[in-house]
Amino acid sequence: MKVARRAGVPPFEVMSILDRVAQFRAAGRDVISLCAGEPAGGAPPDVAARAAALHEDNDLGYTSALGPRPLRDAIASHYRRWYGLDLVADDVAVTTGSSGAFVLAFLAAFDPGDRVALASPGYPAYRNILTALGCEVVDIPCGPEQRFQPTPELLDEAAADGPLHGLVVASPANPTGTMLTRTELAALTTWCDAHDVRLISDEIYHGITYPAPGAADPRGVSAWETSRTGVVVSSFSKYWGMTGWRIGWAIVPADLRSAVDALAGNVALCPPAPAAYAAVEAFTGASYAAADARVADFARTRATLLGAVPSLGWGPIAPADGAFYLYADLASTLGHFADATAWAQALLEEEGVAVVPGIDFDPSHGGRYVRLSFAAGHDAVVEAVARIRSFIS
Amino acid sequence: MKVARRAGVPPFEVMSILDRVAQFRAAGRDVISLCAGEPAGGAPPDVAARAAALHEDNDLGYTSALGPRPLRDAIASHYRRWYGLDLVADDVAVTTGSSGAFVLAFLAAFDPGDRVALASPGYPAYRNILTALGCEVVDIPCGPEQRFQPTPELLDEAAADGPLHGLVVASPANPTGTMLTRTELAALTTWCDAHDVRLISDEIYHGITYPAPGAADPRGVSAWETSRTGVVVSSFSKYWGMTGWRIGWAIVPADLRSAVDALAGNVALCPPAPAAYAAVEAFTGASYAAADARVADFARTRATLLGAVPSLGWGPIAPADGAFYLYADLASTLGHFADATAWAQALLEEEGVAVVPGIDFDPSHGGRYVRLSFAAGHDAVVEAVARIRSFIS
Repeated sequence: MKVARRAGVPPFEVMSILDRVAQFRAAGRDVISLCAGEPAGGAPPDVAARAAALHEDNDLGYTSALGPRPLRDAIASHYRRWYGLDLVADDVAVTTGSSGAFVLAFLAAFDPGDRVALASPGYPAYRNILTALGCEVVDIPCGPEQRFQPTPELLDEAAADGPLHGLVVASPANPTGTMLTRTELAALTTWCDAHDVRLISDEIYHGITYPAPGAADPRGVSAWETSRTGVVVSSFSKYWGMTGWRIGWAIVPADLRSAVDALAGNVALCPPAPAAYAAVEAFTGASYAAADARVADFARTRATLLGAVPSLGWGPIAPADGAFYLYADLASTLGHFADATAWAQALLEEEGVAVVPGIDFDPSHGGRYVRLSFAAGHDAVVEAVARIRSFIS
Repeated sequence: MKVARRAGVPPFEVMSILDRVAQFRAAGRDVISLCAGEPAGGAPPDVAARAAALHEDNDLGYTSALGPRPLRDAIASHYRRWYGLDLVADDVAVTTGSSGAFVLAFLAAFDPGDRVALASPGYPAYRNILTALGCEVVDIPCGPEQRFQPTPELLDEAAADGPLHGLVVASPANPTGTMLTRTELAALTTWCDAHDVRLISDEIYHGITYPAPGAADPRGVSAWETSRTGVVVSSFSKYWGMTGWRIGWAIVPADLRSAVDALAGNVALCPPAPAAYAAVEAFTGASYAAADARVADFARTRATLLGAVPSLGWGPIAPADGAFYLYADLASTLGHFADATAWAQALLEEEGVAVVPGIDFDPSHGGRYVRLSFAAGHDAVVEAVARIRSFIS
């Protein structure tokens, strides 16, 4: 029987490698996983305690399609706190993780055949969801010289082949961790507004940032600080460490609001209720403090990993401004391996260190890269670096 | 800026009315909601306790894209227990509610432009998700004379205008609660297999059934008992009362398996982890017993409601074989109201009883119907009937 052509998207390799890691571990192998973008340590304690209490009460029905209003209020307040932005609950749609937000945003903004530009390398699900929804993905190759971020000039080039309908940006980006400055982001939103291009701004790593002391915009710049025409996507998964809970949100421009509302009720019914009710606790002083303490740990781990890079012979590196990734160019150190995919596979087999091949993030130029996640923590990274050194020596 | 044409789907009215009920209650009004398909009483106690414990441990990362293997195993065993079917974990994809399963199944099976047939009346999200994904919905008008279910003859008629690619059936159905017998379902799967049409079988209300003593197939018949070419969709929301948790599953035919796997990792990453880990507790003897006790309550409430119908002047009624709905034809009792939508609105305003207008389930012929959910429990239904009597007198 027929299988849909649009279903021919590649798997998200990170998820496949996680399964392989689990199989290795089940077989008794000692594996260090630098694969997943999963902060260790769980949710802020108050959030976890509220979720536990909700399950003890055991009276969880559907929430509103766009999530409970107190959570939408709390998210709006978070934008005042971090960005000085004046948002209201109606601007906020609570979603089933950022994944749910992307699906809703893409459905609301883009029709089949619409051309949507993406920085390459980038998070593979953007490409794969858009493809499954019938959109045409327009790659914007961005190298270390652009710190892996698109520019108005690159957008002009991309639009030369035909009008664009959308642009997805991520700052901090995955797999590179590079960030757009306020000026750079404003240039992109200005370009989008001038060209009637809907911006989707992935801000799920905001708050996990490594600014110099006294630097401007230490949490990241939100696209809504520069224009309210785009969709901002964010999540409780990263800064608050709630990956498995599947709870995120979108900030939705006025002209997409009723479409997102109607789509959400049909496509998802509502976000997971326990997570949605517990997540209001993420915005207490104690929860921000718990999250910031983990970011301080990430900063230490990042420094250790960046310090080890010269001895591994990798480069050039665009150091992560945020998130918890290192996108490493292995080209000069691949040796007898055909590409970074083969290298990563051998590293897992021989040394029990799991990393993600760059091909997952950039089908064209990712073959010499791997992504290392340092979310697993300092000790794991120190041991992984030792094993990689042993592997390449 | 552009809003996608495909985003022009109507809201799922049930979710909108639930919001209105919440507003009424917040304003101090005493509202009885016969709107939502939400069983009162929560999850089986063992499931709730496990979820609470998981949140206390606070160490919940992503699951595999298709859910934790122990849960997939447990779901496979459930099919042996209830249907005598021999399934393996690989047949099962754990999803973010049945909503997540429908999105994955539709993406995997149908391309934009494909024609997918639906019984009308039916669950509106089928239509609205398919439309958002670019598919063409082919309505099969099914009246009380077909007990609101499609037949091979009706499918022949639907296919006369052009080949069909898919068929969605639901047994027990929403909004009517009618069920397909084994013979009827087998006739539909045979028709689908002969015409290369992918069947999507919504079985989320299985287990909530009102069979005569000694009747065959008391839990419902699964489409996979008749052919393994279709996708079976089910959920923990209804029989186990876990609506807000957003956890369900699909039974996926072999030829769609890799597509569903790849799509799931990209579109959703994974189902909500706390729900996915806790749901294994749904398959203990104690949990089945707790769920069955609630079904016994539903049976009593159903009898009360059906007993009241003659005195309300509604008819003809196709009594629900399962689920917890009554789809009532108000035609002869609408009085000065233009349609059932206006009637339902006045009922909510004047008597504080919320029901769902049939137009949500059948855009063509639903104008004289309302759906009453008796999931709210016996006392609520008794009081609602009294208020409706006062309203119409």
